[in-house]
Formats: sequence, C-alpha cells, structure tokens
Amino acid sequence: MLVVQKYGGTSVATPERIRRVAQRVVEVHRQGHRVVVVVSAMGDTTDELINLVHKITDNPPEREMDMLLSTGEQVSIALLAMAINNLGEQVISLTGPQVGILTDNVHTKARILEIKTDRINAELAAGKIVVVAGFQGINKANDITTLGRGGSDTTAVALAAALKADLCEIYTDVDGVFTADPRLVPDARKLPVISYDEMLELAHLGAGVLHYRSVECAKIHGIPIHVRSSFNHNLGTIVKEVGNMEKAMVVTGVAHDLNVAKIGLFDVPDRPGIAWRIFRALADENINVDMIIQSAMRDGINDISFTVSQSDLKKALAVVEKIKDRVGIAGYTYDENVAKVSIVGAGMVTNPGVAAMMFEALARENINLEMISTSEIKVSCIIKAHETARAVRALHRQFGLSGEEDCVASA
Amino acid sequence: MLVVQKYGGTSVATPERIRRVAQRVVEVHRQGHRVVVVVSAMGDTTDELINLVHKITDNPPEREMDMLLSTGEQVSIALLAMAINNLGEQVISLTGPQVGILTDNVHTKARILEIKTDRINAELAAGKIVVVAGFQGINKANDITTLGRGGSDTTAVALAAALKADLCEIYTDVDGVFTADPRLVPDARKLPVISYDEMLELAHLGAGVLHYRSVECAKIHGIPIHVRSSFNHNLGTIVKEVGNMEKAMVVTGVAHDLNVAKIGLFDVPDRPGIAWRIFRALADENINVDMIIQSAMRDGINDISFTVSQSDLKKALAVVEKIKDRVGIAGYTYDENVAKVSIVGAGMVTNPGVAAMMFEALARENINLEMISTSEIKVSCIIKAHETARAVRALHRQFGLSGEEDCVASA
Repeated sequence: MLVVQKYGGTSVATPERIRRVAQRVVEVHRQGHRVVVVVSAMGDTTDELINLVHKITDNPPEREMDMLLSTGEQVSIALLAMAINNLGEQVISLTGPQVGILTDNVHTKARILEIKTDRINAELAAGKIVVVAGFQGINKANDITTLGRGGSDTTAVALAAALKADLCEIYTDVDGVFTADPRLVPDARKLPVISYDEMLELAHLGAGVLHYRSVECAKIHGIPIHVRSSFNHNLGTIVKEVGNMEKAMVVTGVAHDLNVAKIGLFDVPDRPGIAWRIFRALADENINVDMIIQSAMRDGINDISFTVSQSDLKKALAVVEKIKDRVGIAGYTYDENVAKVSIVGAGMVTNPGVAAMMFEALARENINLEMISTSEIKVSCIIKAHETARAVRALHRQFGLSGEEDCVASA
Repeated sequence: MLVVQKYGGTSVATPERIRRVAQRVVEVHRQGHRVVVVVSAMGDTTDELINLVHKITDNPPEREMDMLLSTGEQVSIALLAMAINNLGEQVISLTGPQVGILTDNVHTKARILEIKTDRINAELAAGKIVVVAGFQGINKANDITTLGRGGSDTTAVALAAALKADLCEIYTDVDGVFTADPRLVPDARKLPVISYDEMLELAHLGAGVLHYRSVECAKIHGIPIHVRSSFNHNLGTIVKEVGNMEKAMVVTGVAHDLNVAKIGLFDVPDRPGIAWRIFRALADENINVDMIIQSAMRDGINDISFTVSQSDLKKALAVVEKIKDRVGIAGYTYDENVAKVSIVGAGMVTNPGVAAMMFEALARENINLEMISTSEIKVSCIIKAHETARAVRALHRQFGLSGEEDCVASA
C-alpha cells in the first residue's frame, strides 16, 4: 500500500516529537507499506521568522516572505529524515521545488498546478521513505512559492492524488473532526465519518482541523482522508464521499471562526457593474472575500457589506480607499471584533426550518446577528466576537449534537 | 562597475545589523554600480541548527545536514532583500540552487564546478540588487550541497570570477589581515596589501579572515579581494598578485590554529605503498590531512604522524581502526590538545635561516616542537595548545612585525 502521511507543526515542535513521528513512520514502513511523509514547520518557527521580519520592514515583498518562510519546512524535513535514518531505515528528504510541486505565481497564496512524480517514485522504488516539505512549491520562474494557510494539508492531499496513494492520513493535535470545538463545548462528539461537502463547509467556516483547499482537492480526486491525532493511536475521522443513508443527521457540526473582519460600504450607486468593479479590484489583490451582503433599501442607493480574513483587512481597506471615488462610494466602516458561527449538515437542504432553529437559539441568548449567509448545507451568522463561545454552545445544544459517539469509523 | 560584496555571519547577526548592511549595499548601488551581495547565515544560526541535530542523532546523513544548514543562508538573503526593498531599491534574493551554483557530490564539503550567470545577469540588467545565499550549491542529482567552512567566501569569489566583477569585497568583523591575531598580540599591525600566496598560507594556517579555498579561487582567476570591516568605512587589506618590490618583508605574519588534532601511528611496515594505502583511505572519507611526518628510524619500521582538523578526528580514527590490521599498524595514539603556529612570508624562500630564527624564538620560551613542516613561504610547528599565545607573541617579536602601518593600500 502507498500511504501519504502529513504531520502538522505541533507534531514536530521539538526534537523529541520529531523522534516520535519518526517511530510512527517507521512502524508503517516496516509493515511493508511505501510511505511518503509531508511535514510542516516546527511549532512556532513561522511566527519567529515573521517576528524577525517585523524588525526590518512593515511591507516585505511577498516573494521574499516565501523565500523566508519556506525554510521552516526545510528544517523539519531534514531533521525528520535524520531521525528516521537513526532508526535504521533508508530515507530522503525533498523540498517542494525538488519534488517538482509546480504552482502559479501568487506568492504567499500559490495554487498547485502540477506535481511531478518521477523523483518520488524513483526514491520509493529504491526502498526509501520520502519526506516532503509541505506548504511550498516552485513557479515557472524558478522562484519558491508558499501555499498559504493550511498549505501542508493541501500538499499532502495533492501528493496522494498525484501518486495515486491508497490512503492519506492527516496527523494533527486533536483526535479528529468534532461536532464543535471541544475547547468551547466540553461534550462535543468526534465524528467517525464526514462527507467531503460537510468537511468543506466546516473547514471554510473556521473548523481548523483541515484546510478547505485540501478537502476540495481530496473531493475532486476522490482521496479519502483520515484525520487523526499524532499523540495516540485512536481512529480519527474519515473524510470521504458519503451515501444518502449516512446523511440522516440534519446538522453535523457547529463551526466558528474568529479570523474575520467586516467591511461596510455606504451609499454605493445602484448601477450594473458596481459590485463587479469592487470585488474585481479586491480579487486582483488576491484578497479572499467570504460573505457578501447587499441590501437595496432605498431607490438607487445600496449598502454593501462583506467579510475578509483579518490578515487581509489592511490590504482590503487600501483597495477600498483607492477605488472609492471612482466607484462612487460615499463612505466605509470596518470591524475586527466579529466572529462567524455556522451550522453545517448535508441533510439540511431537505429539512426546511433549520435556519430558523439556528436564529431561535441565538435569539434566546440575546445574540445579535450582523450578517447572515446560507448555502445548501450551511448557515453562517456574523456576531460580536465576545459572544462566540455562548453562541457555539447554544447551537450545539439546539441541534442535539452532544452524547456518545454512535459508531466507529468502518473505512 | 560590477561589485560583489560578501557579509559574514556576525555582520548580519541581528535585524538591526541586517538593516545596516542594507544601507551600505544601497549606498554603493546609488553611486551607479551594479551590486551582487553574498551573505552567510545570521550569527549563531548554524550552531543552533546543529544543536537540534544532536538532540536527534549522533550520525546525521551528510545530505540531510546540507538540507538543514542551507536554510540559514536562505533566511539571511530573504531578510536582507526585505531590508533593501524597504530603502526603496529593487532587489531579489536567490538561493545557490536558483543561481545555478553547480557543485560536486561531496556533501558538507562540496566544490563548485560551475556557476551559471544568466539569472543574475538578467536581474542586474533589470536594475536590481541581487542577494545570493553563500555556502550552498546544487549537485547534478538536484540535491542541495554546502561548501563547508568558509564556503560563503568561496561563493563570493567564484561569483566575482564568473560574473567578471571589477571588485570583490569581503566584509567581516575585523579591519583586515593582521601580522598576527590582535587578540593575542596587541600591537599586531594591519597589512595594507598581501599577496595571494601569503594569504593562502595564512588562511590555511588558521588565520580566520579568509578561507583558503576562496583565496585559491581568487588567485586562479586573478580577482583582487578587499578584506574589510562591515562596522566602519576604513580601508582593509587588498589581497592581490604582488610584484617583487613589495615582497621585501621576510615574514609577513604569524598565524595560529587551535582546530588541530594529531594522530600517531606506531611501527608501520616500511614497504612501498603503505603511506598510499593509509592516506588514500582517509581521502576516500573526505578527510583533509594537513601535516604528515614520517621518520624511518629503525630498519623496516616507520612511525607516521599526521594532523587533521578536530572535527575530522572521530572519522579519521575510525578509518585507522578499520585499516590497521590490513596495513599492519601496531598501534596508534592521538592528541587534541595541540595547536599549529606558523610564520608566513613570500620573501622567505630567498632568506635562509628564517626557520632557525623561528625555532630559536620558541626554544627561548621553552616551547617544545612536536612536528615541523615547511613550504616555500611558511614554516609551521605543532606545539601544546596552552602555549599558543606565548608562541605567537614570541614570533611576532622575533620577526619585528609590530609598529605603525607603513602605508595605505593603493589598490
């Protein structure tokens, strides 16, 4: 069997943990499987590097940020390879560029275009364990790129797809995917199985276990992902295509995201092409806009609100400032003290009234809804950040998500 | 003018120092020159990475050491590029592999085979300052290699040669090349000019300012090197081809090296091919043997002594242990508490009795000579390590090296 494993930053945060991961990798290899391991940067490495940057400049070129941050994973792969070698196994580490993980040119948020497999396949054929740096790739100009948040998950899933791996295991510091964040909801339950679509919504809504890009990639290529803890041998959560029978639960989980900022534009002219001009300008700066609300209340005048991640807020405000006169925006405001709470469930589309149940639970807690957005399998609300924990617990209760785990994952 | 500058680890040890280097680089660029900057890893980065390794394994594969250590320079180039960009100049950082610094396959001690210039020339033509990672390259298998001690100096000189640069400046934490280490000899004098050959001997003998491989490379390609301090604007020492007129001084400087270990082999059979077998076996492990002394005192039996750097001692002893029975070595001993003191001077070859003057000075200090080795322009002695400072001071006095600087470098 060909297994792709991915270990996150906390799993390789110290030399001791790296040795433990090596042990785990070698166990699987000695069972006769071929193993490709993807690792992130050790613990706080990335933050430490960013701190150095802040002592030098407030506006680092993004190309140079990628040059800098990609060293974090390179340190991890070298150390993990040493630890595996120390256990007597043949091993080789490879950077993203060495593998041939080709990306587009969008520094700090690159997308994978293609993964070459010849080097990895040759090393696997030679009996080696292959350790690959997550989060990084190379563009056509031979420059190092990074994949942005959750990039190592994406590396692992994309590699599993390219290598036609039998299994993709994502090791993390939690036991799997839960019905809500166990730090907020003590009786949150681990889900044995979750569908790609539900996981996609959860990931997108801030449930930190998997990055949505990796789930998207897994769904497209039909790669089942096993999300599990690197600190124990428990089964985690299998993310896969799920048949109707298993979609019985209306709401699968509650997610929340504190990395949200809201921008409101006042008195925007109600003419065709206005929204296009605003959001094209934001897209050109590679700013991901999440929720968009437009309410045409009065004749010929609109208010438009949207949310971005907090890290993009500064850039987004600069765009707004630049286009405001040309587009005819009277004014704007922003708020960083907001959060997004969401309910997700594949059964939701066939169950009317789910959104109403959500609003009821929040209203009973006296929580004001600043924005609402819905899709076929999720409802999200923007609320004040300090009300997040209370909101998540109320929703978890409202949809009866507490209780014992129903069954053990059979996949 | 095309200038290649190299800044060592202490010059870029902190974000503040990196900003100061950026200022210096930008000054030269604004004078209308094209600038290529080579940098080492920040301060103690390399030691910190090696400490991590020690917590994982005692025998790291050398390929993985290179993978690990090369991240140090990658961090420096990214940060320096950010600092230069912050001053409003166009800049790009490039790793050794990105430049196309092609090396052989000897990990941790690779030699440069070829440097591609198209990427750097294209970036220079676009008006950019180019920041290159020292110490690292790439081999034919697309694996990252490192050049070993002093590798960044070699990168700078080799780049200057490949790019046909007009000037190569090596910035360091001292003011230039001195007649002896100023920490041991307070009245040591800065040399305004020194010949390649003398610098080569000094470098080889442990005078830390320049690595001998870089001097060798400069001599072959006729690149003048300006060794100077990054902490002031004083002129330093020019290393170049020096005519006879300037070779008047018999002894140019006194060098010492504490990174020496002595190995003695007893009762080695006095047959042809024995020395070859011993030193071939050491060379095969890429161990640099420095001094070799063989004394055939009795019939058919030899004692052979040689020195290696302390970092190679463990490996060298393993080789001796492996070949000892096959070659017929009766026993061996080793000593790490030794040092090498040397006098260097291009005028030495035409001045008989210089060696005798050296031995006289050391004898007066009651310092025992364990090994002696001479070349056309240097005499080296192995002594006990704790006698080093006394020996260096005595030699500096003996050859009248103290006093005011004669003249300012005219090159």
